[in-house]
Amino acid sequence: MRRDVSSELLEKLDVEKVSELLDIPEHRITGAIQRKTLQYVRGKQDLFRFDKTISGIEAGTCIFPEPFDIVRGFPKIPRALMLYPGVASHFSSCENVAVEEKMNGYNVRVALVGDELAGLTRGGFVCPYTTDKASELIGQDFFFEHPNLVLCGEMVGPDSPYVPKSIYDIESLEFFIFDIREKLTGKPMPVMKRRELVDEYGLRSVKLFGEYDVEKAHIEIEGVIKGFGRSLNEGVVIKDPEMVITPVKYTSSMSNCADLRYAFEFYNDYGRDFFFPRVCREAFQAVEWNETEEELEERCRMFGESILLPMIETIRNKKNGGNVTETVQIRVKDLKTAQEFEEHLRLLGVNAVFEEPEMTGNGYLVRIQKKYHSTSDKTESILNGDLWA
Amino acid sequence: MRRDVSSELLEKLDVEKVSELLDIPEHRITGAIQRKTLQYVRGKQDLFRFDKTISGIEAGTCIFPEPFDIVRGFPKIPRALMLYPGVASHFSSCENVAVEEKMNGYNVRVALVGDELAGLTRGGFVCPYTTDKASELIGQDFFFEHPNLVLCGEMVGPDSPYVPKSIYDIESLEFFIFDIREKLTGKPMPVMKRRELVDEYGLRSVKLFGEYDVEKAHIEIEGVIKGFGRSLNEGVVIKDPEMVITPVKYTSSMSNCADLRYAFEFYNDYGRDFFFPRVCREAFQAVEWNETEEELEERCRMFGESILLPMIETIRNKKNGGNVTETVQIRVKDLKTAQEFEEHLRLLGVNAVFEEPEMTGNGYLVRIQKKYHSTSDKTESILNGDLWA
Repeated sequence: MRRDVSSELLEKLDVEKVSELLDIPEHRITGAIQRKTLQYVRGKQDLFRFDKTISGIEAGTCIFPEPFDIVRGFPKIPRALMLYPGVASHFSSCENVAVEEKMNGYNVRVALVGDELAGLTRGGFVCPYTTDKASELIGQDFFFEHPNLVLCGEMVGPDSPYVPKSIYDIESLEFFIFDIREKLTGKPMPVMKRRELVDEYGLRSVKLFGEYDVEKAHIEIEGVIKGFGRSLNEGVVIKDPEMVITPVKYTSSMSNCADLRYAFEFYNDYGRDFFFPRVCREAFQAVEWNETEEELEERCRMFGESILLPMIETIRNKKNGGNVTETVQIRVKDLKTAQEFEEHLRLLGVNAVFEEPEMTGNGYLVRIQKKYHSTSDKTESILNGDLWA
Repeated sequence: MRRDVSSELLEKLDVEKVSELLDIPEHRITGAIQRKTLQYVRGKQDLFRFDKTISGIEAGTCIFPEPFDIVRGFPKIPRALMLYPGVASHFSSCENVAVEEKMNGYNVRVALVGDELAGLTRGGFVCPYTTDKASELIGQDFFFEHPNLVLCGEMVGPDSPYVPKSIYDIESLEFFIFDIREKLTGKPMPVMKRRELVDEYGLRSVKLFGEYDVEKAHIEIEGVIKGFGRSLNEGVVIKDPEMVITPVKYTSSMSNCADLRYAFEFYNDYGRDFFFPRVCREAFQAVEWNETEEELEERCRMFGESILLPMIETIRNKKNGGNVTETVQIRVKDLKTAQEFEEHLRLLGVNAVFEEPEMTGNGYLVRIQKKYHSTSDKTESILNGDLWA
């Protein structure tokens, strides 16, 4: 039975062509389809997505069978825990590094597939809402002249159904570009060339803080991060201006604690593996910045509160008969997009209830209640007297 | 090759007899030996130990082949996160519950095997140091009349090489009994009968706080835990006086935070899975005790500091050229015990350096440096500029 499904899928895909273009042996591709690590997804545009990295092809890479096209996944960006000597040693072959803002939203690749835009999430799904917003915010002009390039950027703002944030003074949703890459190879464009090209088309880039001597970059970056103050800007991405060396990210403690606050509100849906790297970031930053006893005290207080208070709030809320949910919202011109997005979330296994759309000036606002079942059930069971095995 | 080793081991064990006594099919026993979940350990007394629970036989159960004997493992004690309704619902078939102290040391079973005492650790190893201390602290009198019983208790004090604590005003090491069980079946003795028997032989029991009406126990236990104040007493174990229903444990926030402080000093050797349940304990206790804003603030501060400060200390220490080690000590009459203990730690895969013994009044004090390689290496690599992948 399973073999039948696989062979049906294999008929949809020109395995020989994929093998040649991506330089992977054919048997690895057919094997990946059988194991569902190369997964067929029906949607606005049907595609095969890499669920994991295989033979050096990034997770999230998409293969569109008809019309045939490939969009490479967005590579994982390693993180510095100590700016010094982390930055200097990683970029030792560069003279300078460019430092751009790492914004807090969700990672999107926008590409032209056939004659339509596709808004791809990090995991390699075509998100109907993101696609709709991409058409509105970016349009096709760029792609008429550059059909083989992908715009990689952050979708940011309160009308984000994935990472809703009101920290940037954005009214609805905006797209900030931080990379332009070749569709098939994923090869990135040098930083300044990319920023100019983005400007040319009237699109938006993430903020550039500057280009710094690699040996002094850690001091400048510390200044940038400290300059965020108590605002929730996430951090920076440090880049080889030529984009030959892989970029590196570094984030602020405020944003780290905000992540913890969010995750521990839904503690049993996130939890274990989420926590540990975030503790390490706090500890190494405190050491690198040589904090005083007072600064340490403040850091520990904020860190402790970021974990316990949201969790306590969730338990109290459940105890008082409330639900463990998160409300997000989308803003659409056409209700068809909301319907397609509802199907998309179902496909992803997200349990969400869509409220009645509210008419606004030029479209609809749709509030969505995301349900966190694992946290809800665990909390309820303990409140009812179950023990921790 | 592996098959040969297994069959050699099988010759040592009367599989038919074990199968009959423990009521497990023979093939499960031979299978477990082949997979090394029933593991042969050479030592003071050679034995087979259950590395995991198999067919309802607890992990840590020991089978001694010569002279043949079986000592059942100490069962896992579930934990209440909310005293109410956790205690009432778990013990719903009891009128009263007995509340005894849960001490902070290491769990030991002492049994007579052949004509020698064996001090067994939770995992089912004969620890030569523990055995030596058991002979000194308990002796064989009890076992002459009760050869089929096992004394289960906590080894507590500063001369503990596993969990050294100076919180109980104990000079060297003491053994506090909390259970007497049948060797072969693990069946426990009723609480009061056990305490009387322990008294009869001049041995020590853990503290009994009282017997309480099951519906009111949560109030009494809250009083006991709060009565610990800022001292580091670990918590309580709540028991069916008849010991028919499984006991339940509950611990204090002070002790929880002390655990965190300890573990995060060696953050990469403990880490991930260690953390999550301990966060949950704090959050549920705060809700159950209906804490004020001030109390919550203090709890968060202590919690945050318990995690970050020891980790920061470790990183700073490493940065200044120090080592990531823990110093523990043992006190022995005969240096042969120290040598045997050194071999025992090697068998367990613990990397430890034994310092030169110091003569004391009636024996020797031996300091042991335990090395935490994973934390040491990880810290060093990040200080040297490695990134977090």
